[in-house]
Amino acid sequence: MSIRAGILGATGYTGAELLRLLSGHPGVSLEWLTSEKFAGRKIDEVFPHLRGFSDLECRSISGLKDLGKVDVAFSCLPHGSSMHFTARLLEAGVRVIDFSADFRFRNPAIYERLFGSTHKYKTLIDEAVYGIPEIFRDEIRNSRLLANPGCFATGVILGLYPLISEGLVDVGSIAADAKAGASGGGRAPSLPHHFPESNENVRVNISASDSQGPEMEEVLSLFSQTDIGISFMSHTLSINRGILTTIYSVLKDKVAPEYISGIYEEYYGGEPFVRLYASDKYPGIKDVRYSNVCGIGFRLKQDRLIAVAALDNLVKGASGQAVQNMNIMFGFEETQSLGGSGIYP
Amino acid sequence: MSIRAGILGATGYTGAELLRLLSGHPGVSLEWLTSEKFAGRKIDEVFPHLRGFSDLECRSISGLKDLGKVDVAFSCLPHGSSMHFTARLLEAGVRVIDFSADFRFRNPAIYERLFGSTHKYKTLIDEAVYGIPEIFRDEIRNSRLLANPGCFATGVILGLYPLISEGLVDVGSIAADAKAGASGGGRAPSLPHHFPESNENVRVNISASDSQGPEMEEVLSLFSQTDIGISFMSHTLSINRGILTTIYSVLKDKVAPEYISGIYEEYYGGEPFVRLYASDKYPGIKDVRYSNVCGIGFRLKQDRLIAVAALDNLVKGASGQAVQNMNIMFGFEETQSLGGSGIYP
Amino acid sequence: MSIRAGILGATGYTGAELLRLLSGHPGVSLEWLTSEKFAGRKIDEVFPHLRGFSDLECRSISGLKDLGKVDVAFSCLPHGSSMHFTARLLEAGVRVIDFSADFRFRNPAIYERLFGSTHKYKTLIDEAVYGIPEIFRDEIRNSRLLANPGCFATGVILGLYPLISEGLVDVGSIAADAKAGASGGGRAPSLPHHFPESNENVRVNISASDSQGPEMEEVLSLFSQTDIGISFMSHTLSINRGILTTIYSVLKDKVAPEYISGIYEEYYGGEPFVRLYASDKYPGIKDVRYSNVCGIGFRLKQDRLIAVAALDNLVKGASGQAVQNMNIMFGFEETQSLGGSGIYP
Amino acid sequence: MSIRAGILGATGYTGAELLRLLSGHPGVSLEWLTSEKFAGRKIDEVFPHLRGFSDLECRSISGLKDLGKVDVAFSCLPHGSSMHFTARLLEAGVRVIDFSADFRFRNPAIYERLFGSTHKYKTLIDEAVYGIPEIFRDEIRNSRLLANPGCFATGVILGLYPLISEGLVDVGSIAADAKAGASGGGRAPSLPHHFPESNENVRVNISASDSQGPEMEEVLSLFSQTDIGISFMSHTLSINRGILTTIYSVLKDKVAPEYISGIYEEYYGGEPFVRLYASDKYPGIKDVRYSNVCGIGFRLKQDRLIAVAALDNLVKGASGQAVQNMNIMFGFEETQSLGGSGIYP
Repeated sequence: MSIRAGILGATGYTGAELLRLLSGHPGVSLEWLTSEKFAGRKIDEVFPHLRGFSDLECRSISGLKDLGKVDVAFSCLPHGSSMHFTARLLEAGVRVIDFSADFRFRNPAIYERLFGSTHKYKTLIDEAVYGIPEIFRDEIRNSRLLANPGCFATGVILGLYPLISEGLVDVGSIAADAKAGASGGGRAPSLPHHFPESNENVRVNISASDSQGPEMEEVLSLFSQTDIGISFMSHTLSINRGILTTIYSVLKDKVAPEYISGIYEEYYGGEPFVRLYASDKYPGIKDVRYSNVCGIGFRLKQDRLIAVAALDNLVKGASGQAVQNMNIMFGFEETQSLGGSGIYP
Repeated sequence: MSIRAGILGATGYTGAELLRLLSGHPGVSLEWLTSEKFAGRKIDEVFPHLRGFSDLECRSISGLKDLGKVDVAFSCLPHGSSMHFTARLLEAGVRVIDFSADFRFRNPAIYERLFGSTHKYKTLIDEAVYGIPEIFRDEIRNSRLLANPGCFATGVILGLYPLISEGLVDVGSIAADAKAGASGGGRAPSLPHHFPESNENVRVNISASDSQGPEMEEVLSLFSQTDIGISFMSHTLSINRGILTTIYSVLKDKVAPEYISGIYEEYYGGEPFVRLYASDKYPGIKDVRYSNVCGIGFRLKQDRLIAVAALDNLVKGASGQAVQNMNIMFGFEETQSLGGSGIYP
Repeated sequence: MSIRAGILGATGYTGAELLRLLSGHPGVSLEWLTSEKFAGRKIDEVFPHLRGFSDLECRSISGLKDLGKVDVAFSCLPHGSSMHFTARLLEAGVRVIDFSADFRFRNPAIYERLFGSTHKYKTLIDEAVYGIPEIFRDEIRNSRLLANPGCFATGVILGLYPLISEGLVDVGSIAADAKAGASGGGRAPSLPHHFPESNENVRVNISASDSQGPEMEEVLSLFSQTDIGISFMSHTLSINRGILTTIYSVLKDKVAPEYISGIYEEYYGGEPFVRLYASDKYPGIKDVRYSNVCGIGFRLKQDRLIAVAALDNLVKGASGQAVQNMNIMFGFEETQSLGGSGIYP
Repeated sequence: MSIRAGILGATGYTGAELLRLLSGHPGVSLEWLTSEKFAGRKIDEVFPHLRGFSDLECRSISGLKDLGKVDVAFSCLPHGSSMHFTARLLEAGVRVIDFSADFRFRNPAIYERLFGSTHKYKTLIDEAVYGIPEIFRDEIRNSRLLANPGCFATGVILGLYPLISEGLVDVGSIAADAKAGASGGGRAPSLPHHFPESNENVRVNISASDSQGPEMEEVLSLFSQTDIGISFMSHTLSINRGILTTIYSVLKDKVAPEYISGIYEEYYGGEPFVRLYASDKYPGIKDVRYSNVCGIGFRLKQDRLIAVAALDNLVKGASGQAVQNMNIMFGFEETQSLGGSGIYP
């Protein structure tokens, strides 16, 4: 079986990673890719590391006649802009995997508050599926509009989902602290991401904190009896890739570490892309970098539980999870083209 | 006025920083420095950047006859070993500034639990003064045994002290998350700090979390009516210097951001080494790096307060604070030799 | 077809990279791996990123009964030690790919001068083949003892081989300057590679300069009428991977850039792992990182030619080239398991 | 004595470093600073690390009435633009220290070829003094127009000046290879300097190679009987600061290392900001970082000499050397405000 795919906004970092992963996928043929900034240039000029792997020409969306001639489109367009093309693609019968936040929220009011504009495609929100396979695999299978989760939300949700589903955690007590590589900030040059400013620095990333905090709250509240509020703060580090999130919570009742391990094992034991650590062992970013794996560890001190989740923001946090979702949606082996180990050092 | 000083364990990173700061201090003459590893070698061979600034020979402690011939000794020796030499120095009439944890705890039981050995100098504990000048300036002035605080504890304590003193915070709700440069791990080579392992990585630092968590709890509990428990986790980053700590808490009552700003201003407005940021503005590590400044910012979301404290672990977190304490103890201008700006980029 | 393989000294960085590459190779079954330091521990404990890919136990060489029960062995042992096991393996009928310098020199006197000890297996030197496939592919095919080239030598030789073969360069004029990631220094902790020492530093690497300079001189002299002397200096940077080498030379006669491009094209046009750049364009390390590609660019100013070669020291500079050689030796597709693009950013 | 100073273009990295150094200089009072980009904002908003050190408002050059009311002006404006303001300042009786290349070349034809435009102030060229104090101290003392040297040129010239003056080197054989921190590329965001692109990368920097190669050739040719041609290539690393340059040359006659050491000692023995290393010892960037020191080491192999020069591009390579020049021009102690050690690690 082979499907045809297209990529909207292919010249950012999630696009580059998607091109790498899809170039190794035997069941996908890439038909087109768009870039307003690099329209007319070949993708292997934009990304020299792709020479020999793809020489597609970047095209402007406006002139793209073949938009509908694919089975699936990945949209790496920014929030706000993505929804328009998503709607057009769906109308043309194309299934869409949307990297933006446009269809991540079930409650459009949250979206509108966060992004300060009216959501124009409310009717599509209902059919959008939030793409964390470890939680929503069945819904993903038949979706035609998949909202690919935020990179920070993915780690926090995977870390907390079993604990909250089992009702173990005092949901008023949660704080999540993310430490993230700079590639999550995108490829557009700006002063805070200018090398000499960013290098050897650590600083708070307020915009990511404000947008993905509500995302994780809304998803996790589905599995809780009361609404969940999370004090979430993200920080930008001077590394390229990876997110390590430390999640602080208070348990309703004291339990043994083995009990927590058992819960995680129950939820994730069969998952190919979740790697569980023994109590008091923790993943580092370089244990998972360049792989689609999310590593989860924890420690327990009396009634306080600290969980640590690590993933590669461009793989499990974006393009890898998108390919995992695509594999599920089109009946490929779920691990297809995602099966490589990380790379060390 | 001029005083004579000595340094025990001078060839680690806190020693190097102390040498730099003291070499620019007009009132201090360095008499000796010790290093077991580099005994017999000149300090500017060990640290080529000091050529032209100091050519003292490193000496072994055991053969050091002039141990008592100084007015002040800085001990950069490890925990456990430092207390023995501290006791000997005090006996010889030398005032001691101890970088180790040996005299930081008022309750020796905490020390003994953390470090797994009996504290042999309990009688000295009572006279030890915990050296955060912004809180204990008066006690520091006349101390002869100064316990120089932990680098992580300094940031968390400075961030929380006004809030806790004013009774604003639910003391059961606090989590503190530190992101720290690798120089805090010391100068002895080890696999986790081997460059290719450490670079581009982020990982949990359990030993620092376990030892400095209780330190900040004990100090802050002095200003609270009930004992304080803090979920503290430290993380090692692939940068050289600096600590940024994000402190999550829940307020007992809602207040306006201006109220919080006012409290911080009241406590730290006149402090030369605390830099306050307006609400929703945060220090980055590079705003304070290479300076003795601790920057403090915060945000308020309903009843949740997130404070951010940034400092250079080798300056305000160690050697700079030690010189600040020395200045107070010996009647120098408190900012003497600490007055330079940070360096950018 | 499937062959059985073993790895001697598998827990260094070249071992880790070899494990990654072989785990994706359908024709190779890994039978054993050795590590003196980690004997008795599973490889995925040593390298957590390999969990799910290999759980072989590390074994001590001394107790390894199956040493001869493989078709090929990769030796990642250090110089001096490697030759003993290479000899034993050859005797047992195993073909050996040796990462050390033990069999790289045709003239044992050079080896003995560099490493300060007598070469004990001079009779094996004659049959050793130097493993740069772009130059020695035919000899590699039937070799049973393959000397895998030095990482620095690989870049310089690939950059100069066409120019010297064509007699274009004044062979007394060559200087080569390598800038290299720290992983080339191995995995044993030491002060110069301790993170805070190494990070943000650049320094000369004399031992690599001294050992690989003669290696490139001897190989290139095969293609020149007179002996070649190269002023070679290597430098260690605070990055993990990659080598960029700038090669300065003077041409015997002025030529046009197109002529140089044509020569490179003639020699490497069909090579899957050499990527040529147009005149005045240069590879960066990140164009080739994590791939088996060597990128080559150049500029011409009157009679002076500056060539720039970039490769990943652990892939084309070590384990990737080893797998490429293995593929040739055993009749696999030469690009098998090496075909992935680099990864960006 | 106290002089009044102004800074044109103060909000780049050389401006920040100049502000730091001048803020610690007891004889200089800063009257104004300009920035087109940040006009109207206070300098400590632009650079938070300067809070408490300077709160001057950035002003637009066009509206600056006090331009002439200073004794000295530092121009950190770009090439081409700097010369206009330099001319205006000189007319107003202000002595100028110009960081741009506008007055570095004695032969305007070189300038015009490099920068592609006519030099409009040729009459001023004759009185411009090239500001390397170790070579031109006497001329600097009375200059009113000082051309502050390029950062790359400074290292190469200091490394070669004694050798060429003594006629030791075959001047047709020289290659110089610079490895440099990213701050040299300035503070304007661009894709190549965007953190995820630049980090973990090494790449050729052609524009710096092309502009500073001729600068070093012209200056060194003053001390040689024939014109000197240098194959110079600069490379950008993913570190903030520092330049290490490796200089390859062939000696006319074989000499002993002691002879070379002696020559360097003769030229630089009394210099406060040149640090000589014994033969076969080399400076690393972190030996000189944050200091005004240029470290020089070398090795000799038969008739080939490799010299290594290291300096901080923003200190000895720019603002530190500018302050050193100002100290000479105005009769201050030459080391005033430049006397601090480097900082480690």
